[in-house]
Amino acid sequence: MSGRIDIALIGVGLVGSAVIKQLASVPALSSLKVVALQNSRKTLLAAPGQALALENWQSQLENNGVPALSLEQLVTELKNIQAKNQRHIAVVDNTSNDSVACFYPSFLHAGFSVVTPNKKAFSGSLDLFSAIEEAKQDDSKPLVYQESTVGAGLPIIGTLKDLVATGDKIKKVEGVLSGTMSYIFNEFSPAAGSTTKFSEIVSVARQNGYTEPHPGDDLSGSDVARKLTILSRLIPGLAYELPRGFASVSTQSLTPAGLADEANADVYVQRLPEFDAEFDEIRAKAQAKHCVLRYVGLIDVEKKVIKAGLEEYPADHPFATSLGGSDNIISFTTERYQRPLLVQGAGAGADVTAMGVVADLVRVAERRG
Amino acid sequence: MSGRIDIALIGVGLVGSAVIKQLASVPALSSLKVVALQNSRKTLLAAPGQALALENWQSQLENNGVPALSLEQLVTELKNIQAKNQRHIAVVDNTSNDSVACFYPSFLHAGFSVVTPNKKAFSGSLDLFSAIEEAKQDDSKPLVYQESTVGAGLPIIGTLKDLVATGDKIKKVEGVLSGTMSYIFNEFSPAAGSTTKFSEIVSVARQNGYTEPHPGDDLSGSDVARKLTILSRLIPGLAYELPRGFASVSTQSLTPAGLADEANADVYVQRLPEFDAEFDEIRAKAQAKHCVLRYVGLIDVEKKVIKAGLEEYPADHPFATSLGGSDNIISFTTERYQRPLLVQGAGAGADVTAMGVVADLVRVAERRG
Repeated sequence: MSGRIDIALIGVGLVGSAVIKQLASVPALSSLKVVALQNSRKTLLAAPGQALALENWQSQLENNGVPALSLEQLVTELKNIQAKNQRHIAVVDNTSNDSVACFYPSFLHAGFSVVTPNKKAFSGSLDLFSAIEEAKQDDSKPLVYQESTVGAGLPIIGTLKDLVATGDKIKKVEGVLSGTMSYIFNEFSPAAGSTTKFSEIVSVARQNGYTEPHPGDDLSGSDVARKLTILSRLIPGLAYELPRGFASVSTQSLTPAGLADEANADVYVQRLPEFDAEFDEIRAKAQAKHCVLRYVGLIDVEKKVIKAGLEEYPADHPFATSLGGSDNIISFTTERYQRPLLVQGAGAGADVTAMGVVADLVRVAERRG
Repeated sequence: MSGRIDIALIGVGLVGSAVIKQLASVPALSSLKVVALQNSRKTLLAAPGQALALENWQSQLENNGVPALSLEQLVTELKNIQAKNQRHIAVVDNTSNDSVACFYPSFLHAGFSVVTPNKKAFSGSLDLFSAIEEAKQDDSKPLVYQESTVGAGLPIIGTLKDLVATGDKIKKVEGVLSGTMSYIFNEFSPAAGSTTKFSEIVSVARQNGYTEPHPGDDLSGSDVARKLTILSRLIPGLAYELPRGFASVSTQSLTPAGLADEANADVYVQRLPEFDAEFDEIRAKAQAKHCVLRYVGLIDVEKKVIKAGLEEYPADHPFATSLGGSDNIISFTTERYQRPLLVQGAGAGADVTAMGVVADLVRVAERRG
């Protein structure tokens, strides 16, 4: 089906393991060969001309791996492998690590493509983003694919790229972009109304593993701000608007002011009920207008407004009626799509995130394999 | 941005003109060179090493074109151009012609890629579909892209291909796939209820150009059946289920039995009110259950059921609440997306159809340019 490429996987946690599982279980993907695996402790490299056997990668990595290489060393080893195998190499970053993200320009200058669900490189400083854009111009034509950075496997980045590439004018991008925020407000403010307390929903979400270990990391809105940064950098006219990346996005934190400095997650959750009345009030105001509350990201291209925060939507709006679970939804309003183009579905989870990564690897193999 | 390819455009009506406009107006697409234009009357070929100037293509085609070449002759001329230009050629079929569709295997065997919004080749006989699949294996590795055959520029075909390629198991595909049917039932059966007569809505739709010249061609459901055929042939286990293509799909026609043979469109529309009571009854039954009516296509993979027809949906279902105008909506339920992945938006129109075609051309240029 696709050309043959070699793959180096950095990070073999939940998402990385799901990537390996998909590569190993789909016969048509057998031309995508894993030649390197690395986690924070160990590195496993394939012998020249060989690929790693994926059936028992855990024990191989544990028993046959060397102590984890530095990223500089990894590049050197991958260059050796490439010199012998004569195949294009794609580096997959399955971490959420800043230091790996900062290394993308080096991977690209070495001639390797980069595929990743890691938001850090594309949502951080403009310097890093610009360095990546510049490194993509390298003579070896390395590719960068990042579908899973927004909405996991949902066709969001690819759709926005197609709209832009074919000359459509993006007017507005708006969406529920955080699975955790989606869950919380689908429960807190359903179209039919609710009286459940905000703190109670957050507490249940945390118990079920839907939040970060510290729920304040979700309620800060920074995940949404990062995704808005990634999207806005794909839009002509906005690409260079956010000098400090997600830190430049106007972001409403839902952590009550009184808990802003509470680093202890247990204490944070215990004290959250003190602020339920504030949330009740905001909800009551929305319900009085027959509206629901959603935590959304918004990019208004003409006004150059990029912001994350709580918004009210009428009860018959797709954001009010259509969502469930921890679904993401994104709406593109453009010159061609005056009625918006909508994409909706699970926006988090190892399998759907890995799907976006593997589909991106197929694209690299089709183009460079 | 993308590699350089040469393009031959067959059909320069509404969609073809929009394709040319997009190619001419987006600077980043300047490496996609049009070397041939053809309509039913004339053919215009570029000189060796040259591309056609797109600013004044209409007058060029009219004044400098030769009488339309046969498709065999066109292949010969394109081979000459390719021998001189040494670039990959993509043939774009912007017609809805059966005879052009039947020629795809010849284009592919000649080494040309095919990009098209024409549904005919992929929704007709299994023989033609199989011949195309076989011709794609040609040594010259020609590509076939067809995003705009279902939902125009909406990411439907690409999304289904990614789900399959990464090993997801498709369980159900369900959607409002005809813009005309969407408009008619959004008006006839909105979530809030309606008493407007079916015949009246069809008549208005026809006056506004939303239907085929003979509305029976929409109400037959064959457009939906064709799209279901295209989608089902991308699903492992179903690809070879429909021997006669769309004619093998179980399809409910909305043309009343008494009008089945009425070839005169004016008479058809004049007589439609005779059957309004039947439609009123179906609507009343749905409304009594707090449901709306939608004309949908359904693929149930496990049961191997592929059918097009009227279905009832509860008033809070996305198909009931979220649609407007002539939107398409499609829902993929899979092993990974237990809550379905939804794509929604304008599914017809020259600009959005051309967008799908041009985005496909970019993919061909990225892979073969």
